[in-house]
Amino acid sequence: MMFSAEDHVFMSRAIALTAKGRDTSTPNPNVGCVLVKGGRIIGEGWHAKAGEPHAEANALAAASESPEGATAYVTLEPCSHVGRTPPCADALVKAGVARVLAALEDPNPKVKGQGGARLRDAGIGYETGLMEAQARDAHRGYLTRMTKGRPWMRIKAAASLDGRIALANGESKWITGEAARRDVHALRARSCAMLTGIGTVLRDDPELTVRDVPSSRQPRRILIDSRLDIGLEARLLRGEPPIIFTVSEDKAKRALLEGLGAEVVTAPTDPAKPGKTDLAAIARALGERGFNEVTIETGAKLNGSLLAAGVIDEIVLYLAPRFFGDTAQSLFALPEFTSLEQALRPRLVDVRQVGEDLRLTLRMEG
Amino acid sequence: MMFSAEDHVFMSRAIALTAKGRDTSTPNPNVGCVLVKGGRIIGEGWHAKAGEPHAEANALAAASESPEGATAYVTLEPCSHVGRTPPCADALVKAGVARVLAALEDPNPKVKGQGGARLRDAGIGYETGLMEAQARDAHRGYLTRMTKGRPWMRIKAAASLDGRIALANGESKWITGEAARRDVHALRARSCAMLTGIGTVLRDDPELTVRDVPSSRQPRRILIDSRLDIGLEARLLRGEPPIIFTVSEDKAKRALLEGLGAEVVTAPTDPAKPGKTDLAAIARALGERGFNEVTIETGAKLNGSLLAAGVIDEIVLYLAPRFFGDTAQSLFALPEFTSLEQALRPRLVDVRQVGEDLRLTLRMEG
Repeated sequence: MMFSAEDHVFMSRAIALTAKGRDTSTPNPNVGCVLVKGGRIIGEGWHAKAGEPHAEANALAAASESPEGATAYVTLEPCSHVGRTPPCADALVKAGVARVLAALEDPNPKVKGQGGARLRDAGIGYETGLMEAQARDAHRGYLTRMTKGRPWMRIKAAASLDGRIALANGESKWITGEAARRDVHALRARSCAMLTGIGTVLRDDPELTVRDVPSSRQPRRILIDSRLDIGLEARLLRGEPPIIFTVSEDKAKRALLEGLGAEVVTAPTDPAKPGKTDLAAIARALGERGFNEVTIETGAKLNGSLLAAGVIDEIVLYLAPRFFGDTAQSLFALPEFTSLEQALRPRLVDVRQVGEDLRLTLRMEG
Repeated sequence: MMFSAEDHVFMSRAIALTAKGRDTSTPNPNVGCVLVKGGRIIGEGWHAKAGEPHAEANALAAASESPEGATAYVTLEPCSHVGRTPPCADALVKAGVARVLAALEDPNPKVKGQGGARLRDAGIGYETGLMEAQARDAHRGYLTRMTKGRPWMRIKAAASLDGRIALANGESKWITGEAARRDVHALRARSCAMLTGIGTVLRDDPELTVRDVPSSRQPRRILIDSRLDIGLEARLLRGEPPIIFTVSEDKAKRALLEGLGAEVVTAPTDPAKPGKTDLAAIARALGERGFNEVTIETGAKLNGSLLAAGVIDEIVLYLAPRFFGDTAQSLFALPEFTSLEQALRPRLVDVRQVGEDLRLTLRMEG
């Protein structure tokens, strides 16, 4: 299938609309939709929040003239099942659109191909693949959950140019400048959940909330705490209750934490590391809870274990123009490699200056 | 003094011409010169090699019409002393130019202000300061030698994104890709000398020659080897003889090395580190030898000591999109800092992608 230059223009707009629902549509995909008739956009929509209308329904409702005979550009295959809202494929049929271009098929087994089939059965021209790569990027959290059964997992870290996240004495406030810290809050705002480890809680007592950017929603906070070592005064226990994954059988401590509102979940033990939680199992549990994107802010050990467990998709690394030297604390604790081919070799997909600092975005392959 | 837009155009060209002599003019500054008459360039010149004519003489010789009444744009104050070639100020006077604009005054005590005075005495309009910052950058090696008595000292390093220059077992070939390695050879080509330490020689046995880019000149090779531990088979001892700085009194080893052509120089002992060479004194010795730019390719210890000695002006850091982990070897051995303010805080002046890698250029302040 060949798509026209005009098709690309309108799908670009639909993809741009995904940004409007990006921070809020969880657990649903942040679909964008544009209705075009006679070469003009007659309606736009996006999915803002679960339970509210989907992108297609919003675009139809916003249409400035009858959508009959229009082309709908959607970033994901229209749904065909009844959820909290009626199926979008049916709404498009009912509205009389002539053609639907979807950037990509929805891998959700409840939809996969069925939305498109419903449209084709109704005589509507339906095609997929227009700007698929861009849509795949915009929906990467949802798509990862649908295909791998776990969220898109992103490590965020701030380091000196010699890869150190704190001085030997633990001092790390602040490695990067204000602009980078604000950028981190934008990353938190788009995340369904924030994840950290007990080492970071005991050392830095983080809140892991969105503060420096406007946000109508706070990410769920998740702690991995094998032995339930968290103190009852920890900031993580204030505000919206966190989920704590543990392998501890300390019923008294669990009751105390639950008394403070925390949800304490017993995770499987890592078969290779007695006394430690199974990180792959936790990642799947997060997928089952409908988290599409999870951002991890933690220390060298848990970051290294998550990387070794193969559950990391992305690393967002802020590098400050400083050198801390060889006594300072390392970025990632990794197994000792004996050849360069064994080292982690992510793909560098973006570099930009954020204030005085650099932000690198890296993707793990596969 | 206000300079016109036209003045900036012609000085830009003069500064661009400095690139032509950059790799070869040592120990002289790589001056560029443009002669302009009636708004047109009538002659261009640059200084290519010590002993050959200076930029001004070359521009006058290349003039397509009489330079009488022309304006000369030069990146550095014209010289007034007789060296291996006659003074440029005199040549400009003799040629009858009406006006001379120099980007900056030559801090060389043999010239400083005297070249300009000679021009003014002859009734020529003479001004400095046009695009001074750019000229200062183009001549930074020479200027540093004239003002600080030592070369512009540049550390070149290649590291993983977690700041590691080799695996625990020493494996480091190759951290960066081909494009970055070629870029390093361009850095070597512009360097008057390459400097390394005995640790690197024993570990990597480098040649430190220019190979991957065309070059008519090889940088002098310098080794810091406090105890004269270098093996007689070391690659550094082949080809053009190196200079070895030492505090060793081992006359037999010295004789063997001198027998192979090496120049062995006894350096002062570092007052703070018995048995080690005084790095500031070595830097001054390199300045006395007329080296304008020295590039350092060495390991964490010597790099750290040079940084601590305050003799480093620039760090060119190639970062490969890899992570080696916390067992791998560090970039810089620095004293343990207890607050972030103590850390090295260079200024990031350039970032670019070189093949798959990033190249960061950092300048130490002061």
